Amino acid sequence: MYPGITISDIARHEDQEVTLAGWLYNMRSSKTLHFLQLRDGSGIIQCVVYKPEAAEEVWNLCSGLTQESAIRVTGKVRKEPRSSIGYEIAVSKVELVHQAVDYPITPKEHGVAFLMENRHLWLRSRRQHIILRVRAAIIKAIRDYFDNNGFTLVDCPILTPNACEGTTTLFETDYFGEPAYLSQSGQLYNEATAMAFGKTYCFGPTFRAEKSKTRRHLMEFWMVEPEVAWMDLDGDMDLAEDFLVYVVGRVLEKHEKELAELERDVSFLKNVKKPFPRISYTDAVKQLQSLGSDIQWGSDFGGDDETILTRQYDRPIMVHRYPAAVKAFYMKKDPSNPDLALCVDVLAPEGYGEIVGGGQREDNYGVLEASIQHHGLPLEAFKWFLDLRRYGSVPHAGFGLGVERTVAWICGLQHVRETIPFPRMLEKIWP
Amino acid sequence: MYPGITISDIARHEDQEVTLAGWLYNMRSSKTLHFLQLRDGSGIIQCVVYKPEAAEEVWNLCSGLTQESAIRVTGKVRKEPRSSIGYEIAVSKVELVHQAVDYPITPKEHGVAFLMENRHLWLRSRRQHIILRVRAAIIKAIRDYFDNNGFTLVDCPILTPNACEGTTTLFETDYFGEPAYLSQSGQLYNEATAMAFGKTYCFGPTFRAEKSKTRRHLMEFWMVEPEVAWMDLDGDMDLAEDFLVYVVGRVLEKHEKELAELERDVSFLKNVKKPFPRISYTDAVKQLQSLGSDIQWGSDFGGDDETILTRQYDRPIMVHRYPAAVKAFYMKKDPSNPDLALCVDVLAPEGYGEIVGGGQREDNYGVLEASIQHHGLPLEAFKWFLDLRRYGSVPHAGFGLGVERTVAWICGLQHVRETIPFPRMLEKIWP
Repeated sequence: MYPGITISDIARHEDQEVTLAGWLYNMRSSKTLHFLQLRDGSGIIQCVVYKPEAAEEVWNLCSGLTQESAIRVTGKVRKEPRSSIGYEIAVSKVELVHQAVDYPITPKEHGVAFLMENRHLWLRSRRQHIILRVRAAIIKAIRDYFDNNGFTLVDCPILTPNACEGTTTLFETDYFGEPAYLSQSGQLYNEATAMAFGKTYCFGPTFRAEKSKTRRHLMEFWMVEPEVAWMDLDGDMDLAEDFLVYVVGRVLEKHEKELAELERDVSFLKNVKKPFPRISYTDAVKQLQSLGSDIQWGSDFGGDDETILTRQYDRPIMVHRYPAAVKAFYMKKDPSNPDLALCVDVLAPEGYGEIVGGGQREDNYGVLEASIQHHGLPLEAFKWFLDLRRYGSVPHAGFGLGVERTVAWICGLQHVRETIPFPRMLEKIWP
Repeated sequence: MYPGITISDIARHEDQEVTLAGWLYNMRSSKTLHFLQLRDGSGIIQCVVYKPEAAEEVWNLCSGLTQESAIRVTGKVRKEPRSSIGYEIAVSKVELVHQAVDYPITPKEHGVAFLMENRHLWLRSRRQHIILRVRAAIIKAIRDYFDNNGFTLVDCPILTPNACEGTTTLFETDYFGEPAYLSQSGQLYNEATAMAFGKTYCFGPTFRAEKSKTRRHLMEFWMVEPEVAWMDLDGDMDLAEDFLVYVVGRVLEKHEKELAELERDVSFLKNVKKPFPRISYTDAVKQLQSLGSDIQWGSDFGGDDETILTRQYDRPIMVHRYPAAVKAFYMKKDPSNPDLALCVDVLAPEGYGEIVGGGQREDNYGVLEASIQHHGLPLEAFKWFLDLRRYGSVPHAGFGLGVERTVAWICGLQHVRETIPFPRMLEKIWP
């Protein structure tokens, strides 16, 4: 037995009798009518039971149905212009498969804490359903973009032997007697695979054991990271721009109606077109100061700065060339000013903050070695990474895009907790 | 700057002058000719320098080139029927970007231990390159299959709070004062998402801290897991069969030539067609005994048993209804014989062993609760999992397919260590 006809396919069965298997999402009744909202995971359809025409046991069974009970509904598919999917079912038969008693998430309002405790059930709600379908669409668009543009997917490891940038925000485990850490980024490995495959990307979960409880942080989140040999910072910005335009375009093409159901104002998304403004960090600081921020050259942007800055623009902006001192050891310095790193952050509009971070990597052996030592990192752990500068070193660049922040931005969500099926937060690892 | 013309695209530039950026894979020379094998990650092309026509500095530069040096080669694309890609480059100019000194992996034979120590460089070798491109193709085919058949990708968490089946094979970490474990499977979570989305799949890394050092084990491996509401064991077998036929077909369609380069006999892969033999565990035991195995009813198959059994067939086989006692607590019992679980393993031919494991899940609240207690597991940890049997419980089933074993089977590899970019094995977490 394999599932049969689904609600998403119902248009192909107009005027036919079908049997749908699903759950009772909601119901309202009058003296002579039951309106069952049946959900099957692919959609929701109204099933109408008309007492004068229904068998008595069907009418009575429906009268006793409860929310989220599992049922099979048989009836004729008929056009219904008032329905959002254009069809409804004129019910002839209902079979009760499992009666749900006291389903905890009723159509009334619930607090977020309660809903998060019941995340395994909350996923059945229309709003969560849409968000996670949009998430899946974003992920598919991301993969299609790279697969169709000559990139090879090369998965990077999660378990890594070295704490590359300090252990304070790393999850540690015991690897048969040795400490190992959960990866925060596949980038170092990506640099090796880019030298083998030219254009490469990895896409997997990443981990950050950060004791922060903000609307933008998760302990476990998904990140896609392209890396390209022979590409410089300008190429990296071209790639990030082209990629984001594609991803947002694909989601709008297929899910604009669902975004509207989330009450997302899609006009900002429709503005995601080339070119994105490219602003140097130094100019961004000046602009922020003129807008009243007390930021000083040399420090990283705070969330407020990002919000103030992005609200000046109608699309994502690319801020490049941050002070090298606030960036990672592997960033290439700007040859025209070694205080600057050849890096770029893409900030989403409307205050959604950084969604992409990347840049050109240091490709000179001696400079990278000095940088590793300057950061107090163990050279031995980076021997393989340095090897990439020993054997056919070439300019290369890449970036990382965080999936959950991107979902939050595209769906217009204030908090990332709804952007992933089972969020892992500071005090939340259940269910 | 973004990479320009690639070798994979070279046919589009016949008779044009192009510049290719890449690495010197190999070279042979005569008195008047240099044959440079240039690799750029998308392919390998022969670049010919003809002394009488070459500038002296180009000839001399090439004479001093070393393996894996980074170069830019300019020349005319000309048809060459003896080339495996049909074209070569008549070189007019060569630019040395970075000279590689003493690249450790020479064209001679190296031991596997040495190659694994240099995995970050070994990836550049033709054979590893093909295997990982086939891996990427397998992963794309897997995702396309589910995306095109109404499944929703719903990622499951890696960090999980409970050690569901004992902690001996789990990697543990500290989650802000509480123990947490790296997931071995997304299946329990998949059951929640299948009730929300009908047809769902997750696809991510999974972890097993098993002190075994066999050619089939990795500590970190990727697994895809579909789960379908309203599906029973027969439907599950139909799905696994249909899915595997699609995946193998897609890989053959696009990579048969590369598989031939790996000296893979693809005749077994061409046999991957419906129907797969469906053999009950009980019949399989009898068959094994008649083939000389000393297996007794009730015990799980060893690797040797799998090899003996699968060598009797020309395609994957599906062994179903194992003894419930050797299977997980969440398996549904066969109503016609409660000593059997409604499960299925798909065994690849040629002795490659189990690539799929799955089955129908227990959907009765009381039976599942008793099973959890019978297995000595903490009820509290499974409260949410039990909830799925409380609110609209329906028959459901699914399976997991291990990516690395599938890559090993399709590529014809004896050991899984080459099927993943950076393998994590018992004594191996580097690079």
